[in-house]
Amino acid sequence: MKKLKVGVLGATGSVGQRFVQLLDGHPWFELGALFASERSAGKRYKDAAPWVLPSEMPEEAAEMVVKPMKAIGTSSTEEIAVMFSALPGDIASVVEKQGAQAGCAVSSNVVVHRMEEDVPLVIPEINTNHLALIAAQKLKRGWDGFIITNPNCSAIVMTLSLKPLMRFGMKSVHVSTMQAISGAGYVGLSSMAILDNVIPFIGKEEGKMESEPLKILGTLEGSEIKPAPFTICASCHRVPVMDGHTEAVWVDFEEDVSVEEVKKAFLDFKTDIKTPFSPEKPIIVREEEDRPQPRLDRDAGNGMSISVGRIRAGNVENEMKYIVQGHNTVRGASGASILNAEVLVERGYI
Amino acid sequence: MKKLKVGVLGATGSVGQRFVQLLDGHPWFELGALFASERSAGKRYKDAAPWVLPSEMPEEAAEMVVKPMKAIGTSSTEEIAVMFSALPGDIASVVEKQGAQAGCAVSSNVVVHRMEEDVPLVIPEINTNHLALIAAQKLKRGWDGFIITNPNCSAIVMTLSLKPLMRFGMKSVHVSTMQAISGAGYVGLSSMAILDNVIPFIGKEEGKMESEPLKILGTLEGSEIKPAPFTICASCHRVPVMDGHTEAVWVDFEEDVSVEEVKKAFLDFKTDIKTPFSPEKPIIVREEEDRPQPRLDRDAGNGMSISVGRIRAGNVENEMKYIVQGHNTVRGASGASILNAEVLVERGYI
Amino acid sequence: MKKLKVGVLGATGSVGQRFVQLLDGHPWFELGALFASERSAGKRYKDAAPWVLPSEMPEEAAEMVVKPMKAIGTSSTEEIAVMFSALPGDIASVVEKQGAQAGCAVSSNVVVHRMEEDVPLVIPEINTNHLALIAAQKLKRGWDGFIITNPNCSAIVMTLSLKPLMRFGMKSVHVSTMQAISGAGYVGLSSMAILDNVIPFIGKEEGKMESEPLKILGTLEGSEIKPAPFTICASCHRVPVMDGHTEAVWVDFEEDVSVEEVKKAFLDFKTDIKTPFSPEKPIIVREEEDRPQPRLDRDAGNGMSISVGRIRAGNVENEMKYIVQGHNTVRGASGASILNAEVLVERGYI
Amino acid sequence: MKKLKVGVLGATGSVGQRFVQLLDGHPWFELGALFASERSAGKRYKDAAPWVLPSEMPEEAAEMVVKPMKAIGTSSTEEIAVMFSALPGDIASVVEKQGAQAGCAVSSNVVVHRMEEDVPLVIPEINTNHLALIAAQKLKRGWDGFIITNPNCSAIVMTLSLKPLMRFGMKSVHVSTMQAISGAGYVGLSSMAILDNVIPFIGKEEGKMESEPLKILGTLEGSEIKPAPFTICASCHRVPVMDGHTEAVWVDFEEDVSVEEVKKAFLDFKTDIKTPFSPEKPIIVREEEDRPQPRLDRDAGNGMSISVGRIRAGNVENEMKYIVQGHNTVRGASGASILNAEVLVERGYI
Repeated sequence: MKKLKVGVLGATGSVGQRFVQLLDGHPWFELGALFASERSAGKRYKDAAPWVLPSEMPEEAAEMVVKPMKAIGTSSTEEIAVMFSALPGDIASVVEKQGAQAGCAVSSNVVVHRMEEDVPLVIPEINTNHLALIAAQKLKRGWDGFIITNPNCSAIVMTLSLKPLMRFGMKSVHVSTMQAISGAGYVGLSSMAILDNVIPFIGKEEGKMESEPLKILGTLEGSEIKPAPFTICASCHRVPVMDGHTEAVWVDFEEDVSVEEVKKAFLDFKTDIKTPFSPEKPIIVREEEDRPQPRLDRDAGNGMSISVGRIRAGNVENEMKYIVQGHNTVRGASGASILNAEVLVERGYI
Repeated sequence: MKKLKVGVLGATGSVGQRFVQLLDGHPWFELGALFASERSAGKRYKDAAPWVLPSEMPEEAAEMVVKPMKAIGTSSTEEIAVMFSALPGDIASVVEKQGAQAGCAVSSNVVVHRMEEDVPLVIPEINTNHLALIAAQKLKRGWDGFIITNPNCSAIVMTLSLKPLMRFGMKSVHVSTMQAISGAGYVGLSSMAILDNVIPFIGKEEGKMESEPLKILGTLEGSEIKPAPFTICASCHRVPVMDGHTEAVWVDFEEDVSVEEVKKAFLDFKTDIKTPFSPEKPIIVREEEDRPQPRLDRDAGNGMSISVGRIRAGNVENEMKYIVQGHNTVRGASGASILNAEVLVERGYI
Repeated sequence: MKKLKVGVLGATGSVGQRFVQLLDGHPWFELGALFASERSAGKRYKDAAPWVLPSEMPEEAAEMVVKPMKAIGTSSTEEIAVMFSALPGDIASVVEKQGAQAGCAVSSNVVVHRMEEDVPLVIPEINTNHLALIAAQKLKRGWDGFIITNPNCSAIVMTLSLKPLMRFGMKSVHVSTMQAISGAGYVGLSSMAILDNVIPFIGKEEGKMESEPLKILGTLEGSEIKPAPFTICASCHRVPVMDGHTEAVWVDFEEDVSVEEVKKAFLDFKTDIKTPFSPEKPIIVREEEDRPQPRLDRDAGNGMSISVGRIRAGNVENEMKYIVQGHNTVRGASGASILNAEVLVERGYI
Repeated sequence: MKKLKVGVLGATGSVGQRFVQLLDGHPWFELGALFASERSAGKRYKDAAPWVLPSEMPEEAAEMVVKPMKAIGTSSTEEIAVMFSALPGDIASVVEKQGAQAGCAVSSNVVVHRMEEDVPLVIPEINTNHLALIAAQKLKRGWDGFIITNPNCSAIVMTLSLKPLMRFGMKSVHVSTMQAISGAGYVGLSSMAILDNVIPFIGKEEGKMESEPLKILGTLEGSEIKPAPFTICASCHRVPVMDGHTEAVWVDFEEDVSVEEVKKAFLDFKTDIKTPFSPEKPIIVREEEDRPQPRLDRDAGNGMSISVGRIRAGNVENEMKYIVQGHNTVRGASGASILNAEVLVERGYI
């Protein structure tokens, strides 16, 4: 099989770098273009992007010349089948549309289009059926290509853990996050702000966590998504951890559910996705009393598995609580967009 | 006024050291004896206790000879009016009783007697009326002295913030803690366990947070405490912060309450305690969108004030959420016991 | 005594904030003006400066309206006797000169004028005699006011420790620093850069450490400073510590010197400066085998004392090694400039 | 080729766990026995050793029953060809000898035998010729087996970097370490000791750094090692980093050497060892002005390469300085012992 050419929008930032790292050696995809701002365009990637990840910058990417956004849709980029987007929110809206107009499948990690009604917001283990929105989107917008999105990093981790619990009927979910600093981007957070500290605020994060999971767990009716019928209450906090979001979750069920039933639901959760980035076990159940922990569990399943543990009954009637942890820049960002693109290929959308 | 002689039980550990530090120069109390295990007894304090606090060990304490526990009740300790207890749980039970039998007021930071029905569990700004249990305790146990206790560090911080909200009627409280490492004691937590990590488990902590506040906020009926009639669901976690517990709280009220009402309740909260360790403002309300933070707020009111912020409506009906932060080894431990003892003096119990 | 009006140049940055904090309640100085860039000018200080220090912003400062640099030398600032400078290097040169021309004593923490031959580079406990350069400076430059400077944060800490060793005759000094993140400024260092990491590079730091001490420890001959006749070899590194620079120092002496002699030299070091910020003991000698440590020792002498320890013989002939630690933003920056200004007052230069 | 059975002495501690992790899937070696104290003996490894490494405990090891030390030399362990030792110093001396008497090749990470004159202290890229001591050792001690050792973690990292510089003639070396917390063992360092701190002391570390490299870089003359003829002056410090020791090195050469010559010497350094753990490049030269850094460089060469950078001239005549970094528990401990054992096989000693 010939590899598909892919591009990365916003390739010089930390999420963009993670795309470049994860795509290196990908069995289906081949890096065809790196896009960044005018300031970086024309430079070799190794000169434009101060590499912030522990591994070495992939050699092939290092020598590529960064293209400007305006090259999208021109002959120089016509081979690109998939655009991964790690653009800052404000320009993502314009550029992602240009990509879709130019015929690309845009697999975006950016917030801007996530909640639009004809844009699939996808976690493949949960709602590949929502990809049916693509046809409606292309028709409505008159595009050759299309846009699909993955949720916010914190939302992905929690939503994966909620999916197997849907069977029991949920009334409400409370969640408190302890989020890694890599989620703020390389220049997003001063070291003086977070050393020996907790910052109990992350801009707009709680709103995302309270809305995105309901769309993902919602029901496709015709070409509309009917949101899942429960309520989420989030409180989001930054802690001095490099990678891996840890989340304390309480679920109020419609009726009585036991610890064993919840645990079995997690253990029984399977995926039928068979693509390179699809983890064998999307959900790992930890038995230790003090797990999951980000330092020990974030790399499980190459960073694509989430880990749950400490399943225990709450004090309120029909309430259970547990801890869930996942790698925020792999499962929660670039890895999620790549998995989405793989599913597009597997299901014939590309 | 002649200063009262006080002793510290378990003086060599990190909570014991905090007692020694905070008692240095106290206007009402004077260090009369330091008690520790047989291993330390007979040594000068400076030789027995490797000092772990940033300030210097107080000079007077440094030269004191540590006494063994068995000296309690002998002529060598008969001048001690108050015993502060920072003993490990297992021996605290025996030794604190010996202190009370010997006629001392034992002001304990230890869990062991907290939930006993004739032992006051006190946060002075909330329930000095519970000190009435002392008479019943002395009668029942036939002691000359008595034991009073302060709650667990996490529980103190949250309970202080809940008190002003009692007026609105509460059905349930959810709380997620991000607790400082000093709460685990000096040898309690390996550096390898917590660097770049979150540990989502603290032994027995959730149970304490779910029970102690209900006793403190409960009603004294005759010589019994009727627990406050709401439910607490806690999830407790350790984060890489030196001092200061940060807690995300959701309160389900009986009826609709506004952000402004909650904020006003916090602002209006006053204390009538006028003792050296009583902070002018027990509750400080932060207006910034990202406060309170432990590094910036833990030392407010010399570590005796708690700080609240981010008051906002939840998504569930009649629910509000906020962040509260307090210094775990001052307000949450040694400072709490000292404040309790001061109130005993002010109210004539000593 | 009527307090002198002082101003702070670059008041909104983290060093500027430290000036504002340390000047609050100063017995001799009174904040008369806060200067910052055009972007901040006209705003109240509390709106212009996001406060990053643990204590509260001083109330008086909070309400002051920030002035633009161009107000220097106008009637609105004519009462200002001392300007403290925390300006970024590139504009410091121009603005500090304007202050001096306007008749102010400019006490600068900035690098730009430090090594100019007619500008005193002063650590009061060492070289107040270098203030004699002021007369030459005023004459040569035709200014009513003048500029004095304090050294780089790392250099101050080491230089104070070297002064008492001068008597033994030094051939060369090697120094390896482990510097706190606050030295990089609030936005200077990404949290992702330094968590679980060491950065073995600080721009231009080694050059400053290798030149500034030689000027300070040099001899005033007429109106010239003859640098101290030894060589410094520095290697500078950033570590995940909030405040307090720790430095490993090796000194090659001209002849054999014992541990006891070095220790006695440190212990005998006295200061005749009697001003508010002058610490009683500029050098504290720690006897413990594992001290000084930044977390435990940085606040000694209100942050104005340095601490030395681990004095031991090297393996090379006539070599001794020791550890020195000091608070980089107090003794090493704002506190240093304030102490310099106090000495100007005490010695009649203002 | 049939795999050789190997054992791990002190298998439950953190270095022991690293041995178990690194040996999992080793192409030449197969785990045959895990030895630990009486307390652990008889338990399955997964019950005896609370696993502290990010990866999962290898499944095969998990089910092995831990053996007591006294099983060494009995029929139950006769298949073990190599014993890797991670024992605490005091019992290592006895147990390692028992292993050697029982005919095993003991590849030890422990300090106790390192400086004994008939025990090879080996870094394979430097001094495999010192393995000639084995014959003398066996003869002298009358053992069927023998003991070889690898140096202290800090010493390995520096010594590898010094080897290529030997050609220029060295008079003295100064080194300042910034060492990771994993070097102190899992319970070795309280989190309260090191958060927001530097500890400028590591017991006996400086002595090891000042002696071991001289033996390794020394000359084999007959059956004696003549130490390398230069002097090392070390200052050792602990910093809040998980893994990876960073060291600032100054070298005083006999004569003038240029930056380019030093760099070329590092680049030209090759190894002829072709075994599984031998890194392709033992020394990696970083060109960036702020590298090497432990978080970014510790895993280079699967943790077996060291990284050097910031090569620059000192201020003293004929002096050069540079930074070197290496993974302290892989290259500096368990990985070093495994590489040594591989070389024993390759060279026919086993």
